[in-house]
Amino acid sequence: MQKLTLKKIAQELEVSISTVSKALRDSPEISDDTRQKIKAFAKLYNYKPNNIALSLKNRKTKTIGVIIPEIVHYFFTTVISGIEKVANERGYNVIIGVSNESFTKEVINMEMLANGSIDGFILSVTKETQLKKDYHHLKETINQGMPIVMFDREVKDLECDKVVVDDVQGARKAVLHLIELGCKNIGIITTRDHVSVGNLRTVGYMNALALKGISLNENYILKLDDELDNDENIEQLQQEVSNYLQENPELDGLLSVNEKFALMAMKLAPVFGKAVPEQLKVIGFTDGVLSKYANPGLTTVSQHGRDLGEQAARILIDRLEEDEFEVPYERLVVETELIERGSTA
Amino acid sequence: MQKLTLKKIAQELEVSISTVSKALRDSPEISDDTRQKIKAFAKLYNYKPNNIALSLKNRKTKTIGVIIPEIVHYFFTTVISGIEKVANERGYNVIIGVSNESFTKEVINMEMLANGSIDGFILSVTKETQLKKDYHHLKETINQGMPIVMFDREVKDLECDKVVVDDVQGARKAVLHLIELGCKNIGIITTRDHVSVGNLRTVGYMNALALKGISLNENYILKLDDELDNDENIEQLQQEVSNYLQENPELDGLLSVNEKFALMAMKLAPVFGKAVPEQLKVIGFTDGVLSKYANPGLTTVSQHGRDLGEQAARILIDRLEEDEFEVPYERLVVETELIERGSTA
Repeated sequence: MQKLTLKKIAQELEVSISTVSKALRDSPEISDDTRQKIKAFAKLYNYKPNNIALSLKNRKTKTIGVIIPEIVHYFFTTVISGIEKVANERGYNVIIGVSNESFTKEVINMEMLANGSIDGFILSVTKETQLKKDYHHLKETINQGMPIVMFDREVKDLECDKVVVDDVQGARKAVLHLIELGCKNIGIITTRDHVSVGNLRTVGYMNALALKGISLNENYILKLDDELDNDENIEQLQQEVSNYLQENPELDGLLSVNEKFALMAMKLAPVFGKAVPEQLKVIGFTDGVLSKYANPGLTTVSQHGRDLGEQAARILIDRLEEDEFEVPYERLVVETELIERGSTA
Repeated sequence: MQKLTLKKIAQELEVSISTVSKALRDSPEISDDTRQKIKAFAKLYNYKPNNIALSLKNRKTKTIGVIIPEIVHYFFTTVISGIEKVANERGYNVIIGVSNESFTKEVINMEMLANGSIDGFILSVTKETQLKKDYHHLKETINQGMPIVMFDREVKDLECDKVVVDDVQGARKAVLHLIELGCKNIGIITTRDHVSVGNLRTVGYMNALALKGISLNENYILKLDDELDNDENIEQLQQEVSNYLQENPELDGLLSVNEKFALMAMKLAPVFGKAVPEQLKVIGFTDGVLSKYANPGLTTVSQHGRDLGEQAARILIDRLEEDEFEVPYERLVVETELIERGSTA
């Protein structure tokens, strides 16, 4: 049997699509009689309405709302450029809100945009949201019929479309490459927090060592406060990385979970008698301007932010324009790529 | 005599502020009799209504619309972080649109946001808009009572609040500094276009040379296509900068109108036998991550993007919350600052 759609129910019962949609949502605009008839028919044919699709008949702003946790951030802005590309090709506008890693701002931004301005969301949740594990605003939005495509930071408990990066695999690939290049003592500069990608990348680092039977040396793991990624704290970052390099003179390979930590290590290595790449090979994460314009260029794990944004926009717009119901949620994993440059040559 | 306000006219004539506002805009909701009385009174006291303020009584979304020409761009995202800061402090939300340097997208974004979502705009126009000199969408928006604060790229013909960077002075200061440091043969890597900041910075470069009686050598001016700023064209950039350094072996000082061109020159200089800063001193524009994490650090002209954003938001919100009429438009010049690092040490 073909999948039952709103359209088919409407044809079968000789009512409008809008009436079917409203009846299935228990709208008071529809008479009890009609409502019961439609619901009985839907039940008979095992039809499970999807709120998102129900709302689509009423909402066509042709605008996508994007919420990102940070704005001065190469990866997130690259994702937006990918979203913009596909959205514009398919006749959609994009409006952007910044949550600034604040749960409250995320909620406010979603309320502001969901209030008739947009057809659906593409968003990455804040670290605070991940820590609180409070997803009511996301669930309510989806229940009210507004589709959400989550990207990068994944909320396992939430059912919706997702486009994620395989951070574990990316880090593992990078460390295996360092081992192939002959590195014996490989360190990682990561972040202290337990929710973000830093954690996943550290898992990938440990995976690679385990795979090759290399025992883990806890001293080789430098866990920094998330805030050291902020340019205002560059001097503190310099101090921490200096101490780390001084205390571990045998390091010959290094993975960093972002570009800034990697660049700082590359800048300081010669101070501790290590030329890059001869005595210390360095790999970072994110193929941003720092990796490309560094001297030597930084070998990096690219998350393909622009591709990720393009895929997220494609998935959202496909869902917005889908006539069928019960399109299953998609979880797309964007493969990372190791881009080799001078820092490991 | 005190400045006449809507409020005072309303008190004097014993009508509501809304009635005065509507009468001055010739609203059909107001009877001919009342309208004529109010307009006669306003004329008698030489009262010139400001459309912007008139609209404020009706529109309070407490949201600011920001339109920027590019999103993967350190300066523009830093401006947004400044706007966000002040907006949040004063209880406003911010929504962002990206024009992607397209006149059409700028017009579409403005229509989308001006349509009831926001109280006012902070925007930087596209290069295409500057080239076309078509500002009808900006003028209409202002005439319809929606205030605009323009930033960075200035449109001289348009009357509105403006927050700009003194690019000429910034470049002049940088070149004078190179001269003080003993540089005799100072070059500039700039952009070819005639509308953007690249042009103003080149003027500043020439000013400084003229001030010190140094004659201009046209070979020292490398004009690159704007597109070479795009990471996809990094190889072409490398080729152009290589040719330039090879053809001008006597260069001992260099100003670049952005960070990327500067970093490329610093990376290539040793290839042509020049250590930075010993044989070639380099100064860039924009105090972004590239300047801070470069090795050696890049001396740069900071435009204080975050301050600029804060000032723009302050000016817009002050105007939105102003009860008085005829607040004169403000043109605020944000002073640049030379931040010294290793590339000129």
